[in-house]
Amino acid sequence: MSQARALDHIDPLKAFRDLFIIADSTVYLDGNSLGRLPIETSKLMREVLEVQWGHRLVRSWGEGWMDLPRRLGTKLEKILGAETGSVVLADSTSVCFFKLLVAALRAREGRTAVVTDGTNFPSDLYVLQSVQSLIGHLEIKLVGGDDDAIEIAPEAVEAQLDRNTALLTLSHVEFKSGFLHDLKRLTAAAHACGALVLWDLSHSVGVVPINLAECGVDLAVGCTYKYLNGGPGAPAFIYVSPELQEKLTNPISGWLGHRAPFDFDHDYAPASGISKFITGTPPILSSAAIEKGLDLVLEAGLPAIREKSVHLTTTFLSLAQELLVPRGFEIASPRDAGQRGSHVALRHPEALRISQALIQEKAVIPDFRRPNNLRFGFAPLYNSFADAEVAIESLQQIVDDRLFEKYPTDLSGVT
Amino acid sequence: MSQARALDHIDPLKAFRDLFIIADSTVYLDGNSLGRLPIETSKLMREVLEVQWGHRLVRSWGEGWMDLPRRLGTKLEKILGAETGSVVLADSTSVCFFKLLVAALRAREGRTAVVTDGTNFPSDLYVLQSVQSLIGHLEIKLVGGDDDAIEIAPEAVEAQLDRNTALLTLSHVEFKSGFLHDLKRLTAAAHACGALVLWDLSHSVGVVPINLAECGVDLAVGCTYKYLNGGPGAPAFIYVSPELQEKLTNPISGWLGHRAPFDFDHDYAPASGISKFITGTPPILSSAAIEKGLDLVLEAGLPAIREKSVHLTTTFLSLAQELLVPRGFEIASPRDAGQRGSHVALRHPEALRISQALIQEKAVIPDFRRPNNLRFGFAPLYNSFADAEVAIESLQQIVDDRLFEKYPTDLSGVT
Repeated sequence: MSQARALDHIDPLKAFRDLFIIADSTVYLDGNSLGRLPIETSKLMREVLEVQWGHRLVRSWGEGWMDLPRRLGTKLEKILGAETGSVVLADSTSVCFFKLLVAALRAREGRTAVVTDGTNFPSDLYVLQSVQSLIGHLEIKLVGGDDDAIEIAPEAVEAQLDRNTALLTLSHVEFKSGFLHDLKRLTAAAHACGALVLWDLSHSVGVVPINLAECGVDLAVGCTYKYLNGGPGAPAFIYVSPELQEKLTNPISGWLGHRAPFDFDHDYAPASGISKFITGTPPILSSAAIEKGLDLVLEAGLPAIREKSVHLTTTFLSLAQELLVPRGFEIASPRDAGQRGSHVALRHPEALRISQALIQEKAVIPDFRRPNNLRFGFAPLYNSFADAEVAIESLQQIVDDRLFEKYPTDLSGVT
Repeated sequence: MSQARALDHIDPLKAFRDLFIIADSTVYLDGNSLGRLPIETSKLMREVLEVQWGHRLVRSWGEGWMDLPRRLGTKLEKILGAETGSVVLADSTSVCFFKLLVAALRAREGRTAVVTDGTNFPSDLYVLQSVQSLIGHLEIKLVGGDDDAIEIAPEAVEAQLDRNTALLTLSHVEFKSGFLHDLKRLTAAAHACGALVLWDLSHSVGVVPINLAECGVDLAVGCTYKYLNGGPGAPAFIYVSPELQEKLTNPISGWLGHRAPFDFDHDYAPASGISKFITGTPPILSSAAIEKGLDLVLEAGLPAIREKSVHLTTTFLSLAQELLVPRGFEIASPRDAGQRGSHVALRHPEALRISQALIQEKAVIPDFRRPNNLRFGFAPLYNSFADAEVAIESLQQIVDDRLFEKYPTDLSGVT
C-alpha cells in the first residue's frame, strides 16, 4: 500500500466521499472553483421542483421559500463562527460586495481611501473601481501593487492604513496563491485606525475555521459554490455584525428587504436586522440547492476539515518539491501551512499545455490561471490522499514524456 | 356543455396545458405571480443537476453555462420584439432595475427628475428611493400620487415630463389593477423631452406583444417567473437598445461583464455590447430552468397568446359584472381590453377572508393584495375558460353561503 493509500485508510473523513455523486474515476481537484454535487442535494432538488414548484406553486412562498435566505443564513453562521442573526443569502458575490462596500463607505464619510491588495480577486477590484467612479473622491490603495505576490506580509497591509482609511477589504484566501491572510490581526489593525473591514471569504468558507464574532469582523461576503458545494453560481452570503446592522443602509433597497413586503407600501422601511440587506426575490432553485452542502460541512466539523486540508496540501507540496521542482515547476503557494487555504499553485512555463494534457490524458482536473499557474484545490470532504499522489505522478509523466506538446499554446475561452 | 367548455373545445392553444405539470384539479389563477412548471423543464433540470453539475462539473462552464445569460437573451429578444444582441439575463429584477436606473441617470447628468406613477410596483419605488439617497439631487415625480388608481391617463404622465426629466420609468402592466400603459406613445413622449425610458416588463412579458425595437425603447427589465414560467425567483433580464449600449456604464462592474474574465486583469474593461451589464456569476440552476418556458411561449406565439388572454379576462369580467357586482364586488381593472394585461382585480371589503375561503373550500388560487384586492391571473398556456367560470361560481357561492366568515380577518405573512 502506498503512503497515500495508507493515509486514506485512516482518514476520519473518508466516509464523506460516498455522500457525493462521483460518476467516474476522474481526479477532481477544482473544488475551489465548483464543488461536487452531494447526493442529498440531488434528491432535495427533485422535491423542490416537482412538489414545491410543480404542485404547491405560489403557496410554497409561505411554506419555506420566504424564509430560505435567513434559514440558510443560520447554518452559515455556525460555519462562520458568526453571531445569531448576522448572515443572509442574497445576490451574486460581486453584487453583495457592492452593497456592503457602498454601505461601509457611507458609514465612514469623510475618509476617502480603501485599502486592498493587488492579488485580490479581480471582480472585487472591478466593483471597487465602479464605486470609485460612482461616488468620486475614493482612493484605492493596492498593497503590493498588482504583481503576482505569493505572500502579503501583514506589516505591508498595516503600513497602508491610516486615519483616512474608510475600509480595509481583502480576500481571506487569495484566489491564485492560496495565501491565507491573518484575519484577526488585520481586522484589529483596521479598527485601530477607525476603519471598517470587509472580508471576501469565497475561498475560505467551509474549509478554514473562521471566527467572525471573536475576531470582531464588521462585514463579510462569500460564495457558496466552492467548498460549500452549493451548486454553480449559487447565491452568495452577506455578513454584517449585529452592532453595525442598524447603522448601515442597504444601497439597493428592494421589496424583500422591506419590513412588510406584502403591505406594498410606497415608502421603503427596512426590515430589522440582517434581512434588510436582501434586495429582490431570491433565485429559489439555486438557493435551495445550497442546504445539503452546508449540512455536510457542519456534520464533518471545521476542525477535522481543516486538519485534513492541511495534511492534503502538505502532502501534495512535499511530493511536488521532491518530484516536480527538479522538472521545472515552481511552487507558488506559501510553504507554511498556517498561511495557506486549501488550494495550492504551481507555476510552469508550459502550464497551459500541461493543464490540457492533465485533463485529456490523465483525467485529472486542475485549473489553469494565466499566464503560468496551475491550481489544485483539495476539498477534504471528497478528495483523498491518493488524489494528490495521482496528480503528482501524472504531472511527472506529462513532463517526462513531453505529453503536453501536442496541445495548443493558445486557448481562447479557457475557464 | 357550458359556454366555457365550448370555448375550451375550440381553443387553439388547448394542447399547451398538457405540457405543464398539473398534479390535481386546483384552479390556479396566480400565474401572474409564479408560473407553472413545464414538464420539459423538469426533465432538463435532471440533466443539469446530474450530468452538467454532477458529472461534467467545472467543465460545464465551457460547455454552455458561460453563454447561458446571452443564449437565453436571444430567445427573449424574439419574445420582446428586440434587436439581436440587446437582451441578457442578469440579477433579480430589482438589482437589474438599479443598474439601468443609475446608468440612465448618469447618461442624463444635469437633469434631476425621474417620472413614475404611484401604482408602480413598490420594489421599483424603493430602488428609486435608495438611488435618490445615494446620488442626491433627484426628484421622484409620482403621477397620480400614491392612490389606488385603476387607470393612468397617458396625458397625466405626459404632463409631468419636461426638460428636467432624466428618465421616465413605469411598469408596462400595473401589478394591482392590470392596467396596460401605452408603451409606444409614452416612450415617444419621453424622447420628445430628451428623457430616457426604462420599462419594467415583469407583468407583460410573455403575455402581451411588445415591440421594443419598433417603439424605440431605451431600457427595460423584466422577470421570468410569471408568464414565462421560469421558476421561483428566476433571474431577470436586462434590455439596452443597441444604440445606447456603448454610451452607458454598468454601475456594478463585475468579472462576468469584463471583456476577458479569465485574463484576471486588474483593471475593468467592459465586454462589448449587452454582456457588460452582467456583474457576477449567474445562478445556473435558476437560469437553466428558464429555457423551456421561453420555448413554449415562442411556439405558441404572442398573437395567439394575447388573443386568448383578452378572451379569458373579458369572459371573467363579464361574468363578474353579471354575477359578482350585485354581490358587493367592484371591478378594479380597466373595462377596455386594450388597456389590460392578463390579470384582473376585484375589490371587496372581505377580500382577505374570501381569498382564504376560495383556496380552502374551492381549490381556486387567486392572490390577495392589501387591503381589499383579489387578483386573478390568466396564463393562456394553461388556463382554460372553465377556470374562469369555476372561479366566478366559487366566489358567488362563498358570498351567498357566507363561507368566508370562519376565516381570520388578519393574516400575518400572507403572500
